[in-house]
Amino acid sequence: MKKVAVVGVGETKFSGPQTKTEVELFGEAATEAIEESNLKPKDIKALFIGNALGDFEEGQGMLQAYAAENIGCLYVPANRYEGACASASMAVRDAFMWVASGYYDIVVAGGVERAATMGTGLATRTFAMFSDARYEYPAGVTFPAVFAMLTYLYADTYKIPLQKLREQMAKVTIQSYRHGSINPRAQFFGKNADMTVEKVLGSFVVCTPLTLHDCCPFSDGAAAVVLASEEVAKKLTKKPVYITGIGQASCGPLINQKEFLPRIRAREISSQQAYKMAGRTPKDIDLCELHDCFSIASLIAAESLGFFDYGKAGDAWEKGEADIGGKIAVNPSGGLKSKGHPIGATGAGQVYEIAKQLRGEVEAGRQVPNAKTGMTDTLGGDGGTLVNMIFERGW
Amino acid sequence: MKKVAVVGVGETKFSGPQTKTEVELFGEAATEAIEESNLKPKDIKALFIGNALGDFEEGQGMLQAYAAENIGCLYVPANRYEGACASASMAVRDAFMWVASGYYDIVVAGGVERAATMGTGLATRTFAMFSDARYEYPAGVTFPAVFAMLTYLYADTYKIPLQKLREQMAKVTIQSYRHGSINPRAQFFGKNADMTVEKVLGSFVVCTPLTLHDCCPFSDGAAAVVLASEEVAKKLTKKPVYITGIGQASCGPLINQKEFLPRIRAREISSQQAYKMAGRTPKDIDLCELHDCFSIASLIAAESLGFFDYGKAGDAWEKGEADIGGKIAVNPSGGLKSKGHPIGATGAGQVYEIAKQLRGEVEAGRQVPNAKTGMTDTLGGDGGTLVNMIFERGW
Repeated sequence: MKKVAVVGVGETKFSGPQTKTEVELFGEAATEAIEESNLKPKDIKALFIGNALGDFEEGQGMLQAYAAENIGCLYVPANRYEGACASASMAVRDAFMWVASGYYDIVVAGGVERAATMGTGLATRTFAMFSDARYEYPAGVTFPAVFAMLTYLYADTYKIPLQKLREQMAKVTIQSYRHGSINPRAQFFGKNADMTVEKVLGSFVVCTPLTLHDCCPFSDGAAAVVLASEEVAKKLTKKPVYITGIGQASCGPLINQKEFLPRIRAREISSQQAYKMAGRTPKDIDLCELHDCFSIASLIAAESLGFFDYGKAGDAWEKGEADIGGKIAVNPSGGLKSKGHPIGATGAGQVYEIAKQLRGEVEAGRQVPNAKTGMTDTLGGDGGTLVNMIFERGW
Repeated sequence: MKKVAVVGVGETKFSGPQTKTEVELFGEAATEAIEESNLKPKDIKALFIGNALGDFEEGQGMLQAYAAENIGCLYVPANRYEGACASASMAVRDAFMWVASGYYDIVVAGGVERAATMGTGLATRTFAMFSDARYEYPAGVTFPAVFAMLTYLYADTYKIPLQKLREQMAKVTIQSYRHGSINPRAQFFGKNADMTVEKVLGSFVVCTPLTLHDCCPFSDGAAAVVLASEEVAKKLTKKPVYITGIGQASCGPLINQKEFLPRIRAREISSQQAYKMAGRTPKDIDLCELHDCFSIASLIAAESLGFFDYGKAGDAWEKGEADIGGKIAVNPSGGLKSKGHPIGATGAGQVYEIAKQLRGEVEAGRQVPNAKTGMTDTLGGDGGTLVNMIFERGW
């Protein structure tokens, strides 16, 4: 297989409700990525888009065909991937393989969603379809409930008093908000920088014990990346970011992982695939954009990815070990909780951030100094799908 | 790239409304395919599923994760592809690349849909989302309307009296029904073998000039195939069916092809990719399962694929040139019009038929004698996505 590089990235601002269609949003991100790659639309051989709920949001199915036309790529093969929140990561991982195989030399991959515009009520109800339709959401178990239960289980499993755990989770939120507040593409740019533990714990309860500030927002947004073979990448950019490891695992209902929970077994399997392929270990990773849909999700993810011991991630966040300058910089973009969570675009947004960080092109205050190796982590549903990728500087 | 073979295929009976879930239907088809391949679920490295409307049909998103678990493949990477009617063909084409690259040696790909169970009203309304949400379906243009207009355009472009064209289209239907009536997996098995031109023309009008018998049914069903590398395939079967050519193109709104219509330009591009890769021409193809969602669609497809001159396909059908024993055997399975059209499964169902035909395992009366080379043709939406694949005997 050939080496595959990210040669350009693009992203809309992640936001609340807005007026552009998904095709338009994706076009904005993809055009930025193509231009940044010093390419023209005619150079693009294929298009891969993650999208979870476009048909429910605005009644457009098969949006990839319309998106391809919209960015000037009429007639290119275009696929849509649906893996709930992991949709865009699936698309990027798949694009990787088409380039790695040598079949295509230049591919655009990304994702788009208008989860905010559809409204929180419809978003929550339709998004719940990405849990088990037999046993989970018919019982009223939407995702806040899943992570609320995981919070209790985490506290019980690792013998951490709930109040202490909630305070640690609040510090996860505070770190995310701080980074997001200085990320111009973040939904919470300029907001929440003055968050305190007291404010987090005192915000309204979404699902006991999770409060508003434990939860990520629904967002509109799109992100796209251009992948190219090593040979082409070297001609296009002095700073190719190579994808050196990929991993993916599915698990169906969360109950399948009951002997492991609150560890997410699918994530352990997926990330180990990526580490093995890259020849890396968790210690080699300088920064990670991980799937912090809820504050507890950050702790769970960071442990399953191998960054901290099980039950110890809360301590790590308290000590700054998960922050820039610490053991590993987690979510310097602000993550889902502050940058935002446009479901089908989130994974590509993570790749956008990693590429910008490795190139050293991020705003002061959230740039990870001399970052050489980055990782993405995207979770679909309540553990049903996990995708991990490792990226490294090519210069 | 490595050579890739179909080593096993499975399919449910395509049917009207029934009681199994999509996960269960897919499990039935995938288990048959895995068993036919002399494999166990633990041998499967990845799962790729096409599905268009599962979230609308039964409220299950990300069904691939649940399907993977259900067939005994817990933790394997699983993707869902949505390309309207071409969803499963996307999944198979994508699986091809993961095996061709050498990354996986054994992959299951297929599709599933419960388009009949959801009811014709909801199916028609939701399915219309796979046309352009800006200009097409808001104007009331559902797919019967698209193909009705194409019928008028075809008659006008090629100067064929409408009544003559309608009679030719009726002969397309009669051939499809005849084949499907002896295909036990077909929705219309045992039915419609006595169809006549008069009955077709006299059935109720769906959208002028299309009558009921010009239209395919909505169906429930699933189909799956096991793809393996050449090395593995040789150990598993004496009759590997190699995928020698693949092609795919997108086009967005049908209006983009206005200078070509009623030719489908995206299909010409897609099929030419497949022919080029396989080193074949239309004359080399012994049988083709093509996307006959309406009788007129068969004529249009057979011409864009290069089997007959433009405007001459109706004559060809009248002369039996598109039948078994003719120039090319079109839809010996009965096609969408008689075998059925479970949207997201249709493309994999076509691969099922081609593999069975090349192996010589089809019922007498619809077996293409000594078939060595077969082709699939799947259209998503109203020309927005086309996928073509060429298959050849490996013995």
